Amino acid sequence: MTGLQILQDPLPPGDAVAAAVVAARQDQLTKPPGSLGRLETLVAWLARWQERAMPRLERVDVVVFAGNHGVAAQGVSPYPPAVTAQMVANFERGGAAINQIAAAAGARLCVVPLRLDRPTADLSLAPAMDEAEFQQAVDAGAAAVEPGLDLLCLGEMGIGNTTAAAALCAGLFGGPGARWAGQGTGLAPEGVARKARVVDAALQRHAALLGDPLQVARALGGRELAAILGAVAAARRRRVPVLLDGFVCTAAAAPLACLAPGGLDHAQLAHLSAEAGHRALAERLRLDPLLALGMRLGEASGAALAVPILRAALACHAGMATFAGAGVADRA
Amino acid sequence: MTGLQILQDPLPPGDAVAAAVVAARQDQLTKPPGSLGRLETLVAWLARWQERAMPRLERVDVVVFAGNHGVAAQGVSPYPPAVTAQMVANFERGGAAINQIAAAAGARLCVVPLRLDRPTADLSLAPAMDEAEFQQAVDAGAAAVEPGLDLLCLGEMGIGNTTAAAALCAGLFGGPGARWAGQGTGLAPEGVARKARVVDAALQRHAALLGDPLQVARALGGRELAAILGAVAAARRRRVPVLLDGFVCTAAAAPLACLAPGGLDHAQLAHLSAEAGHRALAERLRLDPLLALGMRLGEASGAALAVPILRAALACHAGMATFAGAGVADRA
Repeated sequence: MTGLQILQDPLPPGDAVAAAVVAARQDQLTKPPGSLGRLETLVAWLARWQERAMPRLERVDVVVFAGNHGVAAQGVSPYPPAVTAQMVANFERGGAAINQIAAAAGARLCVVPLRLDRPTADLSLAPAMDEAEFQQAVDAGAAAVEPGLDLLCLGEMGIGNTTAAAALCAGLFGGPGARWAGQGTGLAPEGVARKARVVDAALQRHAALLGDPLQVARALGGRELAAILGAVAAARRRRVPVLLDGFVCTAAAAPLACLAPGGLDHAQLAHLSAEAGHRALAERLRLDPLLALGMRLGEASGAALAVPILRAALACHAGMATFAGAGVADRA
Repeated sequence: MTGLQILQDPLPPGDAVAAAVVAARQDQLTKPPGSLGRLETLVAWLARWQERAMPRLERVDVVVFAGNHGVAAQGVSPYPPAVTAQMVANFERGGAAINQIAAAAGARLCVVPLRLDRPTADLSLAPAMDEAEFQQAVDAGAAAVEPGLDLLCLGEMGIGNTTAAAALCAGLFGGPGARWAGQGTGLAPEGVARKARVVDAALQRHAALLGDPLQVARALGGRELAAILGAVAAARRRRVPVLLDGFVCTAAAAPLACLAPGGLDHAQLAHLSAEAGHRALAERLRLDPLLALGMRLGEASGAALAVPILRAALACHAGMATFAGAGVADRA
């Protein structure tokens, strides 16, 4: 599959039979029906999207895409753009939060920097990427999804990218900018107001494109966001369930839901960010977060943090006794 | 310490300096200040109650207390009382949900059955326990907390015990029974209404005791609930932070908060249960749950499920680089 077809061709529907096999087994296990709550439905979800009646979590990758943003020149972050590359180096040396969380989750961390020396254009003045740049970023995202993975956790790093994410949300779901602009890495209120105005300017600048989700992703997004979009689509085609991280990651994946109903059904939202726009975005996409711990770091930190919940869910499903097998009386 | 003094003597205040040392280090790590949200405050909490500036999570116990309840004769559960002992056997053979979740969390599981052959009295007709029985159960709970533990996860098993928990809540915080009665292991609505009436009868029967939290725990509780109360108090005195499981476990611990302000400060609520009364109880006790995944199983399942979150929080704290050490630019 070449070019943007990975985003546009019909998406696989998953294996409903595998999910039904899981649900039937759940009702035999030594617990009141439904009493493991979401742990039960998560296993059925894994089964459906791995297309495997007994899912597994042996190969779990955390992929963090990094990009730089011309819009950072508008003063939308308290940190200088040089921090993007510095944090990539920190990831590579093992010193960032995601290194620790991924290791604790038994997941492999892959960091994919995307032309950090060449920021995207300032999206309030011009399209962030041209067609070729957008396609290269989508391709890089798709290429990062290895066949045979059991689960993919996605995240990002990029100074200025909560502004791109806010612009992308405003482009897909409507403005004004204040609806989607938040504190990011720690903007003061006047900074958040400036960010909202930058998003408003971007909406006006790109008004002619707003009907097309992929054009919105190209003009109001960023390289690491486009890569996430490509990775989410590739994962669906390669039978790999996805955990989405916070606001930027969810915004990056949103065009797939706009292109096709159920386009994100193979993804769970791992963590509801403290970033202002995330709750509205999650509700819009009907994503119910697994965690809500007030984090707002990115780096796939929230996604990796949810992996042990899936491991526990699967351990229950695979390891519990049945009522009949354990000699436990079922309900009258 | 003998008898009920473990519940009544002044409680240690924790180590505020250790918590402050953690907070100071958090602000040096390569992340925007506060961006790990609750992961940051959880490490400070561990430090405060372990009284150790670099907390650890090497010895984590999951303790499940089991008891039987005379009130089960009132038809307040869809399962027969024999299931309590059958599930204890299932725990011992490794077939229950908590076996899988504890193993996934790297925790040791201890099961403590409390005179399963001798149910408590029917709390709607008489005090559930006499003074000696109550004290024995509290002692059994305290004895289950081994010195040197880094974290204690508490839970319970007992057919009929959501009725005892509802009665205990109503006794401590006021009725009517319908405020606290829920579906338990899966009661139909008419069963929930019957359960509420049983709680109302208990409130009336024990009206003279309702001003004393320990008398409420004795007359309207149960053995495994009293054991949890004893374990929570013992943990405070032995520098062991506690993760509370769902509705029954939280209700069991509640008398300690009624006896002393801050009596549950060394405990976190691990999971908000789907059981009806749990949200109101958590709000009343100012406990903010770490997880809310729709579970309603008990067995410490929610408590053990939250252990990996603490492990990830501690891994970040212990393993991340500082801004200075990693050569990452801090904010302007």
